[in-house]
Amino acid sequence: MSSTPPGLSMGIDVGGTKVLGVVAHHDGTVVASLRTTVVHDEGSRPGEALVAHVVEMASALSAEVGIPATSLPLGVGMPGMVSHDGRMLYAPNFQSASDAPIAEMLRATQRVDLRYLGNDADCAAVCEHRVGAGRGVHDLVMVTLGTGIGGGIILDDRLVRGAHGAAGEFGHMVVDIDGPDCPCGARGCWERFASGRAIERMANEAQAQGHLLDFPLREGASELSGEDVTMAARAGSKEARAILDEVAWWLARGIANLVGILDPALVVLGGGLSDVAASMLDTLRAELPGLLEGGTLHPNVALEVAHHGEAAGALGAALLAGGCA
Amino acid sequence: MSSTPPGLSMGIDVGGTKVLGVVAHHDGTVVASLRTTVVHDEGSRPGEALVAHVVEMASALSAEVGIPATSLPLGVGMPGMVSHDGRMLYAPNFQSASDAPIAEMLRATQRVDLRYLGNDADCAAVCEHRVGAGRGVHDLVMVTLGTGIGGGIILDDRLVRGAHGAAGEFGHMVVDIDGPDCPCGARGCWERFASGRAIERMANEAQAQGHLLDFPLREGASELSGEDVTMAARAGSKEARAILDEVAWWLARGIANLVGILDPALVVLGGGLSDVAASMLDTLRAELPGLLEGGTLHPNVALEVAHHGEAAGALGAALLAGGCA
Repeated sequence: MSSTPPGLSMGIDVGGTKVLGVVAHHDGTVVASLRTTVVHDEGSRPGEALVAHVVEMASALSAEVGIPATSLPLGVGMPGMVSHDGRMLYAPNFQSASDAPIAEMLRATQRVDLRYLGNDADCAAVCEHRVGAGRGVHDLVMVTLGTGIGGGIILDDRLVRGAHGAAGEFGHMVVDIDGPDCPCGARGCWERFASGRAIERMANEAQAQGHLLDFPLREGASELSGEDVTMAARAGSKEARAILDEVAWWLARGIANLVGILDPALVVLGGGLSDVAASMLDTLRAELPGLLEGGTLHPNVALEVAHHGEAAGALGAALLAGGCA
Repeated sequence: MSSTPPGLSMGIDVGGTKVLGVVAHHDGTVVASLRTTVVHDEGSRPGEALVAHVVEMASALSAEVGIPATSLPLGVGMPGMVSHDGRMLYAPNFQSASDAPIAEMLRATQRVDLRYLGNDADCAAVCEHRVGAGRGVHDLVMVTLGTGIGGGIILDDRLVRGAHGAAGEFGHMVVDIDGPDCPCGARGCWERFASGRAIERMANEAQAQGHLLDFPLREGASELSGEDVTMAARAGSKEARAILDEVAWWLARGIANLVGILDPALVVLGGGLSDVAASMLDTLRAELPGLLEGGTLHPNVALEVAHHGEAAGALGAALLAGGCA
């Protein structure tokens, strides 16, 4: 393997719907970034589609910066529970990779220099802690909003991965025992109420009940998307705003649970729906204190939106690969 | 202050209903222990009743071992959120002490040598980690079952206190948004379903619906107690057993949430209801895997009952005061 250019590393974040990749300096400066759409290949060997995405993205980024991929330390974030030895234990939104030994498969390609492989939201937490909204904060909780909800925990300036690497799975915290079914097998998981899919579900239920009818479906779409709702809310729709307010309330409810358990100084909201989170920030800050045990007697917790938006996962993966996080 | 006898310290655990105190060696050997009942004095200055309990217990233990209380490093566990500077931020089951500067008040008495003041379940977690069910385990979650539910978190062999000292408040994690009201102000908190008070609530609801009628109230009691139910279950009552099974299911549900967030290697069940927890252990072990995200793909988590039962809080407080935890 050739020598590493000083201070540069590569981070790739494979999500349930898209792949983001960056090449970055150790101070967080991004020198190249790319984005593609995920193709889930259920027919292939478990993890093969995911590994192919990573290798392709690494190769494309490598071409972009003119450095061989094998000379750039690589960090990878993935949407699920990842064991310390790099196995994707379970990925509710990327089931074709569940139980696959991703690190082993990536190393076998001999086309990348894998240094870190972990959960995508863990990577985002590291990014925001090192070079984002959580700089200088010792204890923070990262909540990533996308298709589902991801989570990362920093305590005493260190990423908490748990005994097996599976810590931070906030999205499947059950908050409503009688709530809607979740693909994970449980009912009433937090991400059923506060995620991209939750916004879609609520919007389509609202349409079925005769609301939100002034927002027609996009061409070719059979259902309203989360983006339709946020655009409608921005355009002044009170019904769309009401849906986002309900999502914000559930978001606050789950955050209050996490604050009770972890007592962070800061909760950072990021992920693909960072913009939506930003639009909810005032509501969240108003709701949260009333939901905490002890109310006003509970210590204050700050709420901020990620500085690196949906790129935080890829950038954090790069920082982890570079050994500076 | 006179010199400390080598290796001895004192721990006092003030609960919502009782005070437990121990003098112990640093290896966990208990050389004296006492137990009294709590008197909540709502009329006095906030925290005064709690401080009086600690000073009285310290004095009694001191007499027991023939060493002045001021010569025994003291650790105190309290049933609520405790700030790093020793203020009881909020105590749902000891409201007369909420917002009181307990450490300051204790030091002002000049009758004790206070070295550690924190949450009772945090102390229990330290005890079980150092000299109990969690010896040798790096990442564990302690769940104490008593009047309510308390919690303690050990990660990488260190107690997690959070940014303000308030981490580990598991009991008020909302698991059923439409559940019964909680004194904390929320609805459907975990401890409404899995604690001493929860057993009582379910038993009295069962009686109101015409069940459990063969178990008469104790003399002077207006309601069934949690102990009545556990005794009835032991005596073979199927209805009492059904209540405990329901409590066990809820206990497993909340534990599954915590495992998703923290990914410990071990969950230790302790507190005043340690015996009840022991009787539920088979049910809990059978239920838990089905409630975890990914089911059988989720990493295993061990479930054990505390080795030190309801004494773990006091012993852990002593260990923390002795500086060996």
